[in-house]
Amino acid sequence: MRFAVLNEVSARAKNTDILSALAGHPQHTAFNEGMDAEGGGVELTYIQTGLMAAALLNSGACDFVIGGCGTGQGFLNSAMQYPGVFCGLITEPLDGWLFSQINAGNCVSLALNKGYGWAGDLNLKLIFRELFRDPPGAGYPPHRGESQAQSRSKLMEISRAAHKDFAEILFSLDAQTVRPLKEYGVFLDLLREADNAELSRKVLSYLAGL
Amino acid sequence: MRFAVLNEVSARAKNTDILSALAGHPQHTAFNEGMDAEGGGVELTYIQTGLMAAALLNSGACDFVIGGCGTGQGFLNSAMQYPGVFCGLITEPLDGWLFSQINAGNCVSLALNKGYGWAGDLNLKLIFRELFRDPPGAGYPPHRGESQAQSRSKLMEISRAAHKDFAEILFSLDAQTVRPLKEYGVFLDLLREADNAELSRKVLSYLAGL
Amino acid sequence: MRFAVLNEVSARAKNTDILSALAGHPQHTAFNEGMDAEGGGVELTYIQTGLMAAALLNSGACDFVIGGCGTGQGFLNSAMQYPGVFCGLITEPLDGWLFSQINAGNCVSLALNKGYGWAGDLNLKLIFRELFRDPPGAGYPPHRGESQAQSRSKLMEISRAAHKDFAEILFSLDAQTVRPLKEYGVFLDLLREADNAELSRKVLSYLAGL
Amino acid sequence: MRFAVLNEVSARAKNTDILSALAGHPQHTAFNEGMDAEGGGVELTYIQTGLMAAALLNSGACDFVIGGCGTGQGFLNSAMQYPGVFCGLITEPLDGWLFSQINAGNCVSLALNKGYGWAGDLNLKLIFRELFRDPPGAGYPPHRGESQAQSRSKLMEISRAAHKDFAEILFSLDAQTVRPLKEYGVFLDLLREADNAELSRKVLSYLAGL
Repeated sequence: MRFAVLNEVSARAKNTDILSALAGHPQHTAFNEGMDAEGGGVELTYIQTGLMAAALLNSGACDFVIGGCGTGQGFLNSAMQYPGVFCGLITEPLDGWLFSQINAGNCVSLALNKGYGWAGDLNLKLIFRELFRDPPGAGYPPHRGESQAQSRSKLMEISRAAHKDFAEILFSLDAQTVRPLKEYGVFLDLLREADNAELSRKVLSYLAGL
Repeated sequence: MRFAVLNEVSARAKNTDILSALAGHPQHTAFNEGMDAEGGGVELTYIQTGLMAAALLNSGACDFVIGGCGTGQGFLNSAMQYPGVFCGLITEPLDGWLFSQINAGNCVSLALNKGYGWAGDLNLKLIFRELFRDPPGAGYPPHRGESQAQSRSKLMEISRAAHKDFAEILFSLDAQTVRPLKEYGVFLDLLREADNAELSRKVLSYLAGL
Repeated sequence: MRFAVLNEVSARAKNTDILSALAGHPQHTAFNEGMDAEGGGVELTYIQTGLMAAALLNSGACDFVIGGCGTGQGFLNSAMQYPGVFCGLITEPLDGWLFSQINAGNCVSLALNKGYGWAGDLNLKLIFRELFRDPPGAGYPPHRGESQAQSRSKLMEISRAAHKDFAEILFSLDAQTVRPLKEYGVFLDLLREADNAELSRKVLSYLAGL
Repeated sequence: MRFAVLNEVSARAKNTDILSALAGHPQHTAFNEGMDAEGGGVELTYIQTGLMAAALLNSGACDFVIGGCGTGQGFLNSAMQYPGVFCGLITEPLDGWLFSQINAGNCVSLALNKGYGWAGDLNLKLIFRELFRDPPGAGYPPHRGESQAQSRSKLMEISRAAHKDFAEILFSLDAQTVRPLKEYGVFLDLLREADNAELSRKVLSYLAGL
């Protein structure tokens, strides 16, 4: 699977830890799409990284997004404003496995400053291992599995029913919010290779015009 | 403030703990709108409780929703499909305070089976105490306060831009998903007293016609 | 290594989860020395399981003890009254790894009711995996490794300096406290095969005379 | 009550947070007996702070010790080598209350680097509030209260049976381990006012002779 990693400013220092943890899963490809640990570059808050997550998922430029912020709540609330994003807040390994089994979403938000101390990087490794361990969607506890599968399928319907089209949403956001995305070349590059070429073309051409 | 409590089936046994914890905050009024601990009644999953949360918040029938499920991720993902819902996943007291200070949302989702053991009821009390302790939105850490205020305001704009109107969404959901709400008289009663009488009338009349 | 599992009464229902988690480590042998999940048998509190832990470790009947209680604090405080017991309270996978690297003790205490909910059994599996993953005692963070090795060696000296001999302690405890141990045949059997035959003979003959 | 705060080197930066959290409990008096956040001073590891904890508790120079280290496991294992020390590892508010109700010990060890991130100082405040909230020893859950009271009383007997006298232990430790205590004037001062004047005199005169 193609994973996009999206760090915002307050926890950018943890970007390296996320990439190292993902490196332990060579069957997946990680794309580092937001801020890195180095400093420099246009500042992204979770407002931008949530939008980028939605752009990548809706256009099929990646299969899964790993984002986060200081507590994880901001990125979660931002990414989930858009259609087709199903995001868990993951703070311990158990959360990773339960989210994959019960919710089988396409996005996780990490708490990268709250509770992040000694061996926080190991905690990320353990979280990803549990998140990727078993085929998603088996349900937990087992006797709730069928009901949970129905809920997931219903949730996708509701997501479509509740949101406008992604491109329509993007075009209605104010330019100041969206403009920082133009500075992230790797993000634009990934969009260019998206499965949904029509949507990605729309997004890229809109960004070019800002 | 008016708090709506919304329990789904898998963690309904914890409904009593939530109500007890809220009882320690007599300045707030709690309305028990979903399943209770008793057993009986039409079954609600987080698909329904998330929809109910959105109906109550969008119509101004309550100011804040307290929901949850086994891990909290399901209710969170369900409630956040709709406009005007800003929801945190809260598992420890620290989360409560940080969410109130940084995100100042109008909804929390609780993990009511995962990690819920001895004195889980006390944990809820501590969570609510921290959630309600300080005026929301002061920001944390202080030097990020202004940026966080901007993000919150931007998030509200995005929520409006990204979603269809609540009534429009409701009308497009399939009847089977929505029908269980009709069995919850306290929910209908609370809707009847909503601040946004126009929206609540639309919702109630639609439900009546199902 | 030889692992002794010691459950007391309040969390005996979790005994099966501990054994299952250990079964994933076939290089280690697990001996179930305390209460099991079935019910029946003489009741053991952490007073007895702590004493049993110390008897097994001091006599070399096992290399490592896995105990616990509702919160883990009781067994920890009980086992650590005796010489030669170095015990960590382990509630999440990260604790397991850090304890093995920094403290390299011979005993862990688990919280088996507090925080033990959905997938609590998986949490035990993850804890043991981290506890057994790397050779113990490498230190963390690396630059503190040497200082931590010195502290461990000093701690062993202090343990010898601070305690009476185990047999002497045992003989001075009141009979009512010790007598329940006689009912645990597997415990007596394990003691019979202890590395320190002299101490185990003393303990067994004392128990026989009670 | 008289509280002694004992920080070792790896988490000395958190000393200020502990003192601030205790300042919210003016009915208790806090004595800062170990390293402070400033830097400078003779280095103490948990080997020394555990010994200091035992010296203060055994001589009645304080009623309760608050210690800790990076994970809390080191100080816990160090302090519990000595007679009359009953110590809990406390990482969340719930632990504080459960430890006070079930174990009613006289010492806590805090994890001051692991899991210590944003608002870690608030977590300490919440921990102390729960630790001090209710009269200790009421038991939890209620039906286990009597059995827990018996266990506590038995544990004190065992502590006396298992350990040599504190002075005897102290005299047998190597001088290098003990000598750093001489550099902590506030520690020596507090010892001078200990309830057990005989023991404190022995300790002070031994330290003076090193």
